[in-house]
Amino acid sequence: MPYIKIEVTREGVTREQKQILIKGVTDLVSNTLNKDPHLTHVVIKEIDLDNWGYAGDQVSVLREKSVTADKK
Amino acid sequence: MPYIKIEVTREGVTREQKQILIKGVTDLVSNTLNKDPHLTHVVIKEIDLDNWGYAGDQVSVLREKSVTADKK
Amino acid sequence: MPYIKIEVTREGVTREQKQILIKGVTDLVSNTLNKDPHLTHVVIKEIDLDNWGYAGDQVSVLREKSVTADKK
Amino acid sequence: MPYIKIEVTREGVTREQKQILIKGVTDLVSNTLNKDPHLTHVVIKEIDLDNWGYAGDQVSVLREKSVTADKK
Amino acid sequence: MPYIKIEVTREGVTREQKQILIKGVTDLVSNTLNKDPHLTHVVIKEIDLDNWGYAGDQVSVLREKSVTADKK
Amino acid sequence: MPYIKIEVTREGVTREQKQILIKGVTDLVSNTLNKDPHLTHVVIKEIDLDNWGYAGDQVSVLREKSVTADKK
Repeated sequence: MPYIKIEVTREGVTREQKQILIKGVTDLVSNTLNKDPHLTHVVIKEIDLDNWGYAGDQVSVLREKSVTADKK
Repeated sequence: MPYIKIEVTREGVTREQKQILIKGVTDLVSNTLNKDPHLTHVVIKEIDLDNWGYAGDQVSVLREKSVTADKK
Repeated sequence: MPYIKIEVTREGVTREQKQILIKGVTDLVSNTLNKDPHLTHVVIKEIDLDNWGYAGDQVSVLREKSVTADKK
Repeated sequence: MPYIKIEVTREGVTREQKQILIKGVTDLVSNTLNKDPHLTHVVIKEIDLDNWGYAGDQVSVLREKSVTADKK
Repeated sequence: MPYIKIEVTREGVTREQKQILIKGVTDLVSNTLNKDPHLTHVVIKEIDLDNWGYAGDQVSVLREKSVTADKK
Repeated sequence: MPYIKIEVTREGVTREQKQILIKGVTDLVSNTLNKDPHLTHVVIKEIDLDNWGYAGDQVSVLREKSVTADKK
């Protein structure tokens, strides 16, 4: 009976990316724990940049300073 | 000191339905556990259909295929 | 596709009380929103009294002062 | 590795207030537990008044009755 | 800045399975959204069978009736 | 009506530290948003080191490698 919540900053996540996340995490959990995917729910929450804080700063402020969260 | 979170898909839940949920779950928890309702908070979160996954599929895709979550 | 989380202080909630909460909230959500109960999951989380704060005080301290959360 | 979620009613919280919350809670947790702030994330969630219930009533209804949550 | 929570029933999830879940979901989110994994946190919560309800029943009761959540 | 959840790794957080967190965050939110502290609840969740992942690794593994989360 897994339930998975994915919280990300709201920065243009596309419908296709959401589907990839949902399918990927459902398969991962289902295969790793041998769980019926029909008992697996995934919820994605997109958080406004003003509402996410990292190291004490709003992400919106970090982005204005060109600090990104991109992979190196 | 109960706190209850209710997550549902965003599919036209009315203000009246929300009030029924809030009153019903507050009474249920308060009566079952003998808790002061003034210490009971309920939060309803409505999730976009693109952001809820079931069995690996986006609910928005399931709805396009006429798969509903209605009671039988 | 509802998911409901119930957080309460860990103060001797019995298995029977948990079953009443699970059945009651599933019926409430299912009937109010016309949702298939097979898509409804409920999770109960019991929180240690040292880990719940109310009005700035640990509930464990409030209980030592005989402040309860009982219904009046 | 702290993660902090702050849920409040959506009642005009300003960007500046959010920054104060993010900085304040990051410092508090970081100083109290001696944790690297670069491992500390804060997420603020604003909840519509129809979606928050207190003592069995929607907060939107309480506000219509001039019941506030203001400090005394 | 992703944060992922995975809730599963407490049924003997091993340390190795947890590591597979953590690595897998971090890679999935990081690759799909192009996010720095050093900003990605995963939290696994194991829920007692008495505390998880499905379709109105405690999972502990379902298990006593030999109803499993295994993949078919 | 604020509700605050603080998730930290389970690494010997003392009762006194918890009380400092509860008081501090209640005061912060109450003062910043002008909210009655009697409507403010704080919940602390301690997560086992095997159950928290950072950058794809279990924190328990990071600790074995002497990687800490201490402030520099």
